[in-house]
Amino acid sequence: MTSQEADERTRQFIDSHRVARLATVDASGHPTVVPICYVFDGGRFYSAIDEKPKTVSADRLKRLMNLAVDPRISLVIDDYSEDWTQLGYVLVRGRADVIEPGGRDAKEHSKAVELLRERYSQYRTKAIDRRPIIRIEVTRVRRWTSKG
Amino acid sequence: MTSQEADERTRQFIDSHRVARLATVDASGHPTVVPICYVFDGGRFYSAIDEKPKTVSADRLKRLMNLAVDPRISLVIDDYSEDWTQLGYVLVRGRADVIEPGGRDAKEHSKAVELLRERYSQYRTKAIDRRPIIRIEVTRVRRWTSKG
Repeated sequence: MTSQEADERTRQFIDSHRVARLATVDASGHPTVVPICYVFDGGRFYSAIDEKPKTVSADRLKRLMNLAVDPRISLVIDDYSEDWTQLGYVLVRGRADVIEPGGRDAKEHSKAVELLRERYSQYRTKAIDRRPIIRIEVTRVRRWTSKG
Repeated sequence: MTSQEADERTRQFIDSHRVARLATVDASGHPTVVPICYVFDGGRFYSAIDEKPKTVSADRLKRLMNLAVDPRISLVIDDYSEDWTQLGYVLVRGRADVIEPGGRDAKEHSKAVELLRERYSQYRTKAIDRRPIIRIEVTRVRRWTSKG
């Protein structure tokens, strides 16, 4: 397996899944983890904050506050199967920040909204274009399968 | 909904799922996250390290090393659905350590092996009785659903 093939398989694994789990640390250094929807453009991951502030869950708000304190994150995308020879995951390490509509990164925000709506039809009726988006700069990606 | 009912629903959610994602932090404070199998006895979670040392993946070993440095963990067990009114998760915060067969906690280790083998038939042919087990002391559990 060449490195190029590995990259393509990893990309395919990422693109073919619908949910990831994002680990962050809070101000005290305690890790936390939440499920997220995401899109990967080959370089960066984007994840929307689609809830209205008053209905957003405490855990989801916490995720944003954590990123402001410490940008370091990990993301796992995985397959569970009762056949344990069929397990696999992609583990991403990176740094995250939050981009805003109309801010310095308005263009990137618009592009991320477009990609997210393309991938998740559910976002097409949600005002994610008016909400912050989590941007993840990937520092390392590792793919693992139980097939070896 | 009384607190007792909430506890029962949370317990049911935990018991009816097969995989969780465990977030830990490494020595530098960087969060990481891996999928794990688990059993919950009502008070503590247990997770086996079933791989033989030479085949264990680097990420899985890292998880153990992380716990030795910082016992603080979070665990998420969740449902993804394309119908976003059907999302839900249980988020657990806690402290983890590792118990060994024949060690100070040998009895608890044996009990955990028994519970894990009861829940996952896959473990019945694996020598998890001779391997360390991750023990998680729960400090907080929160259940969230998109149904509100």
